[in-house]
Amino acid sequence: MISIQGGVTSPLGFQASGVHCGIKKNSPDLALIYSEFPAVADGMFTTNKVKAAPVILSQKKMRKGQARVIVANSGNANACTGKKGFENALRICQMAAEILGIDSREVLVASTGVIGEQLPMDKVENGIRMAAKELSSQGSRQAVEAILTTDTNIKELALETDISGQGKKKVKIGGIAKGSGMIAPNLATMLCFITTDACITRDALREALQRAVDKSFNQISVDGDMSTNDTVIILANGKAGNKKIKTWRKKPTLRVKDVNFEKFCESLEHLCIYLAKSIVKDGEGATKMFEVKVEQAPFPQDARRVARAVADSNLVKTAIAGASPNWGRIMAALGSAHTRIRPERVDILINDVLVVRNGESEGASLSSLREVLSADNIKILIKLNQGMCEASFWGCDLTEKYVKINKRYI
Amino acid sequence: MISIQGGVTSPLGFQASGVHCGIKKNSPDLALIYSEFPAVADGMFTTNKVKAAPVILSQKKMRKGQARVIVANSGNANACTGKKGFENALRICQMAAEILGIDSREVLVASTGVIGEQLPMDKVENGIRMAAKELSSQGSRQAVEAILTTDTNIKELALETDISGQGKKKVKIGGIAKGSGMIAPNLATMLCFITTDACITRDALREALQRAVDKSFNQISVDGDMSTNDTVIILANGKAGNKKIKTWRKKPTLRVKDVNFEKFCESLEHLCIYLAKSIVKDGEGATKMFEVKVEQAPFPQDARRVARAVADSNLVKTAIAGASPNWGRIMAALGSAHTRIRPERVDILINDVLVVRNGESEGASLSSLREVLSADNIKILIKLNQGMCEASFWGCDLTEKYVKINKRYI
Repeated sequence: MISIQGGVTSPLGFQASGVHCGIKKNSPDLALIYSEFPAVADGMFTTNKVKAAPVILSQKKMRKGQARVIVANSGNANACTGKKGFENALRICQMAAEILGIDSREVLVASTGVIGEQLPMDKVENGIRMAAKELSSQGSRQAVEAILTTDTNIKELALETDISGQGKKKVKIGGIAKGSGMIAPNLATMLCFITTDACITRDALREALQRAVDKSFNQISVDGDMSTNDTVIILANGKAGNKKIKTWRKKPTLRVKDVNFEKFCESLEHLCIYLAKSIVKDGEGATKMFEVKVEQAPFPQDARRVARAVADSNLVKTAIAGASPNWGRIMAALGSAHTRIRPERVDILINDVLVVRNGESEGASLSSLREVLSADNIKILIKLNQGMCEASFWGCDLTEKYVKINKRYI
Repeated sequence: MISIQGGVTSPLGFQASGVHCGIKKNSPDLALIYSEFPAVADGMFTTNKVKAAPVILSQKKMRKGQARVIVANSGNANACTGKKGFENALRICQMAAEILGIDSREVLVASTGVIGEQLPMDKVENGIRMAAKELSSQGSRQAVEAILTTDTNIKELALETDISGQGKKKVKIGGIAKGSGMIAPNLATMLCFITTDACITRDALREALQRAVDKSFNQISVDGDMSTNDTVIILANGKAGNKKIKTWRKKPTLRVKDVNFEKFCESLEHLCIYLAKSIVKDGEGATKMFEVKVEQAPFPQDARRVARAVADSNLVKTAIAGASPNWGRIMAALGSAHTRIRPERVDILINDVLVVRNGESEGASLSSLREVLSADNIKILIKLNQGMCEASFWGCDLTEKYVKINKRYI
């Protein structure tokens, strides 16, 4: 697996574009991603009970497992907009289908931005027309720019993997994402669109996406607030010409794992973790990123809960912002998780410095700890010494700037 | 029930004091509360898996249901201090017992402050001696001052209730508390000590305390961080001379509710809600308090979960800090709670102004909403329109000052 230039337009047969149509005042606000060929599709969506109209619609369409186009806008979430909001989301799909000359069932829709306002549909229609004209196989950058909200930079990556079979083939995966605030695990206020030219079954695509999201977007937190619009969509158009990737391969006598599936999963996971980390790094007001790794937990959910409790703690996040050597907050946070951990067995290492052994201070000096915590990237390793399971979680610090940004968002 | 002067020394037969013994640099750091007579006792403690030594010890001692003395210090939490920390907590009880000439089993201990450091026992011993000399029936104010950490003001209240029976008697309840950061439901980084001269059974005292804490300290949040040291203790010495309060009163033919028990519960609940609200009002960096009231929920836990999710949301808290009319954040937060609510039925009123009806904007102008949110006290009323259950939860806004305080706590 190697990293290559570009994003969603790097895989063969994909085009994208991004335009400004007036939903936001000045910046690009409408993106189009287009596969020149029919594609297998899958998606994962927010688990919030309050779901935006585009989420409800795209989730429903996803049952078919096929899609070619994603229309995404920023500046307006089309959430809490009732029947009219849902009709508008439907209308967007119809417009895009007419303009691009395809079936409207193959169009997916996603939105991010302010909750509770209706979309300006005239502007959106105009935007789709403009974006359709702008579509190009170098358009990934324009597309990602059009889905940003309070993000300060773009999140984009493309990877290439060799897939073996009848003649080795190069398969590409590309992705773009936006994040920034309202970022909690179980998907965040984030949109992520992934394209691939891999030839792959729907089942394999779905399993690969679930695995990748579980290890990436479900393991990040900016502020613990769960959004109404989180969406991850993947389109696979098969243009790489590889032997079709399946989860299992039938042999005359037994079922064996498809090695190419594992390779594809690895690439997709790498892409998703990269994009997830980019979202955390660019969290609202964030100056530092940190990883919480929990090891030796009795069960996987214990590891995940402990990692999340620590990464979500406002007190841990402010301590990291201020390089305050307050490891007691890590202990307090991990104890608050709903688990059966034994505090007297806990070891904590911060950037490889042993800070807590068996639940007590290891005696590191405050000044040395302050130095360790002054690094830009912090890794908090928590060893529970109670089993074999582990989990990683990524978070960012909580700064005055986060408060400032969110006091004045509207 | 009427409000009277003072705090824990208002009920008959209680003395208290607070001194500076050197755990903190300049401010009072050791408090003593003393009942002149044997007293029935009960307590509730943090549910964090990581419990401070004084919590483990006092919780154990509480099984006996009797206590006369509380020794409490600020500046050092005696948490994550291992065996030695536990021995120190034990030693504090022995010291106080020797100095005051009582049984060490009747001494309870509580601490708050920095996690992970051992207590300076010489200073503590000296402090207990000083505090014992200072004990007075006007000492409540000194005691509460000695348990503060980042609190900016004291939390203290006393109430008097008529208890009927053979001759009406006046029963007094007094309480002091500290809070500020690491305040989450299921008890917070808070200490609360309550005294009463009521004559009451242990069972009745326990039930009254649990009811009161469930409606007060378990319904507040400053930052959602759960502490290692949360402690609520109540001592009842019976000096009011009232007919003993029981949960049920046996009559020849049937069991009936004790009306005096209900009166006592009402007073205790009033006291605890007052102290809990004072803690939220004085939350670290807080400029505003808000109440989230959820009505018409299908089950009590749905009401509580929704109320908590909204009160705990960093985005709701920053919106309130900035008077930002971003009701979408309230919808996103309530949807994130683990419940079976139906978003399309939700109504939201902010300070009696209908903002959301059936999950959609009611069309209130942004400027009018901004004005509503500029009030010092905000009440968010969420009607789920799905049942009969309700819950209230109190929180405070999230400001730059909270971040500033917690970046530099150590």
